[in-house]
Amino acid sequence: MARNENTPEDNAMAQQVQRRRLPDDRTASLIAELKDLLGERCTTSASEREHHGRGESYHADAAPDAVCYPLSTEEVSAIVRLCGKHGAPIVAFGTGTSLEGHVAALEGGITIDLKRMNAIVEVNAEDLDATVQAGVTRKQLNAYLRDTGLFFPVDPGADASLGGMAATRASGTNAVRYGTMRENVIALTVVLADGKVVKTASRARKSSAGYDLTRLFVGSEGTLGIITEVTVKLYGIPEAMSAAVCAFPDVGAAVQTAIETIQSGIPISRVEFLDDRSMVAVNRYAKLDYPEKPTLFFEFVGTEAGVAEQAERVRELALGNGGENFQWATTPEERSRLWQARHDVHYACLAMRPGAKSWSTDACVPISRLGELILYMREQTKDAPFYVTSLGHVGDGNFHMGFLIDVNDPAELAEAERLNGVLLQRTLELHGTCTGEHGVGSGKSKYLRAEHGDAAVDLMRLIKTAMDPQNILNPGKVLPAN
Amino acid sequence: MARNENTPEDNAMAQQVQRRRLPDDRTASLIAELKDLLGERCTTSASEREHHGRGESYHADAAPDAVCYPLSTEEVSAIVRLCGKHGAPIVAFGTGTSLEGHVAALEGGITIDLKRMNAIVEVNAEDLDATVQAGVTRKQLNAYLRDTGLFFPVDPGADASLGGMAATRASGTNAVRYGTMRENVIALTVVLADGKVVKTASRARKSSAGYDLTRLFVGSEGTLGIITEVTVKLYGIPEAMSAAVCAFPDVGAAVQTAIETIQSGIPISRVEFLDDRSMVAVNRYAKLDYPEKPTLFFEFVGTEAGVAEQAERVRELALGNGGENFQWATTPEERSRLWQARHDVHYACLAMRPGAKSWSTDACVPISRLGELILYMREQTKDAPFYVTSLGHVGDGNFHMGFLIDVNDPAELAEAERLNGVLLQRTLELHGTCTGEHGVGSGKSKYLRAEHGDAAVDLMRLIKTAMDPQNILNPGKVLPAN
Repeated sequence: MARNENTPEDNAMAQQVQRRRLPDDRTASLIAELKDLLGERCTTSASEREHHGRGESYHADAAPDAVCYPLSTEEVSAIVRLCGKHGAPIVAFGTGTSLEGHVAALEGGITIDLKRMNAIVEVNAEDLDATVQAGVTRKQLNAYLRDTGLFFPVDPGADASLGGMAATRASGTNAVRYGTMRENVIALTVVLADGKVVKTASRARKSSAGYDLTRLFVGSEGTLGIITEVTVKLYGIPEAMSAAVCAFPDVGAAVQTAIETIQSGIPISRVEFLDDRSMVAVNRYAKLDYPEKPTLFFEFVGTEAGVAEQAERVRELALGNGGENFQWATTPEERSRLWQARHDVHYACLAMRPGAKSWSTDACVPISRLGELILYMREQTKDAPFYVTSLGHVGDGNFHMGFLIDVNDPAELAEAERLNGVLLQRTLELHGTCTGEHGVGSGKSKYLRAEHGDAAVDLMRLIKTAMDPQNILNPGKVLPAN
Repeated sequence: MARNENTPEDNAMAQQVQRRRLPDDRTASLIAELKDLLGERCTTSASEREHHGRGESYHADAAPDAVCYPLSTEEVSAIVRLCGKHGAPIVAFGTGTSLEGHVAALEGGITIDLKRMNAIVEVNAEDLDATVQAGVTRKQLNAYLRDTGLFFPVDPGADASLGGMAATRASGTNAVRYGTMRENVIALTVVLADGKVVKTASRARKSSAGYDLTRLFVGSEGTLGIITEVTVKLYGIPEAMSAAVCAFPDVGAAVQTAIETIQSGIPISRVEFLDDRSMVAVNRYAKLDYPEKPTLFFEFVGTEAGVAEQAERVRELALGNGGENFQWATTPEERSRLWQARHDVHYACLAMRPGAKSWSTDACVPISRLGELILYMREQTKDAPFYVTSLGHVGDGNFHMGFLIDVNDPAELAEAERLNGVLLQRTLELHGTCTGEHGVGSGKSKYLRAEHGDAAVDLMRLIKTAMDPQNILNPGKVLPAN
């Protein structure tokens, strides 16, 4: 198995892996039982195992011992029961686009790939909801909805599965208007560590009937249960839509415009910041000629009159902050070209340094502190030995940095880790969170105590231990080792 | 102590009370220690105790052994530690406006009244958030915000405390636009059963950093911890606002108009249904002359142009369904008169039968099933031996019924309980929830297994037992006894 050079943290985890890995004979017995259950849908092929131990980031890979492809909630339950019997770790896998090492099988065990559970179970157009199996991706759902006039808005960039998006509490560019998975999941079907199946809620839009199990599983990253079905909110496709790009003389002016937009209560659907370095990458990658300056991408939705009104107000705010070159995209083709450029940033940045990996990190602060945070990190990273980009869903105060590193260079890895720590420490000082949407995985668990305090982390651990006493569900993720 | 006649359910609970009540000598020791801690802010006065064992509904009262008035989170923690040492039950009390017996001290013990914890801790106008102590009421917060151009929208009718509203996952008339407490609480400070203090989240608008402790406590009704501080979202006061009342020939036409409004994606801020009997009560109580027919109350907010556009669309939908007498209220005085009428419904109905109490119940279904549910219950209650009103926050599918009963008449109580069961059974068949916003308390715990299934309720119990192993936090509420 191809393994990247490890960070000290990874080495510590690798030792833990050695310590906690199931004995080979038990693993062999388990796999034999899983093959009895699933036939060829349980595989130990090296390429399958390697693929499933890998996310889209700098984290070291860690392959499971086998990969299973269930077709139903009942099969997931049966797999979990067998793993429970043997005490084997279980990692749930959607599309493998996570960024904090979520899918690495740190202690070996079984990966449950949900991609074949990709049925649209039901669409209730009149109630604006849909229920899908966990492996359905957001693009698949939206393609299915094409003729209904409805859409599912949460858009993390990658064409992730809805189960994975729920598990990491994903959001993305239009969370500023439509909310994150926290607000958009109505109900979940979840397989617990003992194999029992829970339906977390009815399809009612609101309920005060007991503890909010839905929100307990949203963001739990496969550590409390395996999500097998997701009921989400749908929205009417807006009657009118308009998008624009505007360059600013400096970072502060761009961020200030975003802040003023939110504070004015303008119901903007997206407001995305890209710094000058990200714009260089975007221009090169997509052969565009945007000004290579700090830039905001805007999207407005609503009625024709409402969109025009919103757009004019934001234009005035932008001009007041020195914005220039306001470029409009009103046709669907222009809009999709514009947003494609934004969505390609991750790959555009990777293309700036062929062979590099991106250490992608995110933080989220109250919006009034966002400009300060971005400027602070610009100063902190100005001498970094690698390309650094910053961008963000600035309407939510959510800020991303990308460090384009050679993962085989321990000095670069160490410097990226140091800068990540600088970012997150400053974020916490500014009353923010160490991750706005990427999740904790193994990469950020060491920041949880600093963010939440010992009592809150101990409470999370108490819940985890009660629900998964053997610690078989995605061990080594979310909660810090001590 | 004044006690209503009991339902069979209440009698069963009363027996449980006798069985589980702390021995008198231990209670005396605890109260002595609490008085050492709090002085006169711990009281055993009969009137104080009785007041605190009583909500606003038909449920039997049950007074605690003493009432404490802490001034700080630290004092709440100290009280909880003392109660924990003695194994004494603890009930948190806000303004006593709950409707499902939440505040009744079924096993005696200590009520913690948070009303003196009424400080506005901080308002971050630029971030659109505020942090308050749990005893701050929504009207108090909005009065405090008056000069900021901001407001807190969640409005359950009663001037409830924000701690109580968070604890019951309250919502109300404008949840259709602004969401419920689930969506509007950013963070909580909570005292756990062992006295430890947890801050559930930062002020960031979104986060993927660990389990969603905030949402775990929102709606937990004091059974998992005592909420002492609440951070909520604020919103800009809309530039323009308009309201209207429209009568319909029948219930179906009114509800269909509400459904079409939501399905069209019109961002209406309130759409309230009142049946003809509720309108009779409102007219008498407030000396108004609205048509005594099924009626919708609407509110539109936004820009001048946006409000006009929304209002015109809804008027067309209403006319298409036979709506008539569309009456507009555009001045603040007219609007407040209109909404006062709506808010007074509870008291207006009580005035229809002096001396009666209201058995207020609520249910919530996917909006496409709402008309069916309301018509079904109209048929089921047509021969009821008491006045029955139905109304609802129909934009959410949330439906209320009020049974005006003589609580000293066992036959009326039994019939109200039967009709409540009929409503909730039909609600569950229609994929709804047994309470949209009132909460479970002791009144609806017996419906939880039917709604959620055994595995989900057992999971809730597992969490409760892990977090409160002595079962001292509001025992007898939320979870069914078995």
